[in-house]
Amino acid sequence: MPDPIDYYFDFSSPYGYLVADQIDAYAERHGRTVKWRPFLLGVVFQKTGQKPLSEQPLKGDYCRHDWRRFARLMGVPYHEPEPFPIATQAAARAFYWTADQDEALAKRLARTLYRAYFAEGKDISSPEIVTGIARALGIDMDALAAALQSPEIKERLKAEVSAAIERGVFGSPTFIVDGEMFWGADRLWQIKRWIEQGGW
Amino acid sequence: MPDPIDYYFDFSSPYGYLVADQIDAYAERHGRTVKWRPFLLGVVFQKTGQKPLSEQPLKGDYCRHDWRRFARLMGVPYHEPEPFPIATQAAARAFYWTADQDEALAKRLARTLYRAYFAEGKDISSPEIVTGIARALGIDMDALAAALQSPEIKERLKAEVSAAIERGVFGSPTFIVDGEMFWGADRLWQIKRWIEQGGW
Repeated sequence: MPDPIDYYFDFSSPYGYLVADQIDAYAERHGRTVKWRPFLLGVVFQKTGQKPLSEQPLKGDYCRHDWRRFARLMGVPYHEPEPFPIATQAAARAFYWTADQDEALAKRLARTLYRAYFAEGKDISSPEIVTGIARALGIDMDALAAALQSPEIKERLKAEVSAAIERGVFGSPTFIVDGEMFWGADRLWQIKRWIEQGGW
Repeated sequence: MPDPIDYYFDFSSPYGYLVADQIDAYAERHGRTVKWRPFLLGVVFQKTGQKPLSEQPLKGDYCRHDWRRFARLMGVPYHEPEPFPIATQAAARAFYWTADQDEALAKRLARTLYRAYFAEGKDISSPEIVTGIARALGIDMDALAAALQSPEIKERLKAEVSAAIERGVFGSPTFIVDGEMFWGADRLWQIKRWIEQGGW
């Protein structure tokens, strides 16, 4: 069984959202599974000195247009969220806590959180919004709410973010396939070729 | 006859180089021509506050790897140039001066300059190197050398760069197709689809 594709994303990243619905089916067509790894772009930005795309002159305007256009191409609903970007600790912690019990359910939770933020205008920086969305998926809301405040899950997310930076992850989404890193929602065509040909 | 594809690039941009050899043939397959428009990333960076990719933590390491990998995929020779990045006024001015007389020759000059820098280690920030390369293509070296110092060609390049920024160009390569902007060497698949479907 070949290694899974690592899919690094931030819950506040439009480009991360654009591939979330299809990444598992995409990988499956190429005989792979996907390991979802939410991380915190804000922590990375402290290290790289980058600013959120939307705050960058010229590039911000392009990206706002591109997000809408790219979403139409991918067939996913997209409404520019406000506020943007947001803190995504609650969403990422909820993901890892759920994944430790049921990875498929955690992916469903992630897709639902992404859609809540980018299509339904819900501010998923709020732990209450996150736990409410989790409850609708059958997740134990009270246990999750308690877990979100626990030192264990905070440390867990910190460790995941540090590990991502250690591997060189600087943007969302980033994919790692057989040790090879590809950055960007627009690189799926290269990943496909890399897997099919075993590199080039 | 549909409008040409605008191809904005900086002569010091690896991603711009990676598509230069194939962009005209690519466009022709889709019934289009290409208008080459060299500009100066350095001027854009003054406006956007961006730094050269190679100087950005984490992203710089990724890009250095990606340039080599992407070049293999595109089948173009690539050796990491040193110094990098460089000033590209001489190359861009030489392009526009030549294009005013012979656009096809100017594209040949541009491809040759790109290859000289990214494959043969020649520092094309030097006007002497640029005019030497031009001479090998049959261009009047003395007339070009004089033109590179003329106020007219300096103004011409300034105007082209201002017009690029006015249109929102912030990176290299950038393509504009029927008023629609696409940024990045990895977006050719979207441009193809945009042309074939007349948008989406």
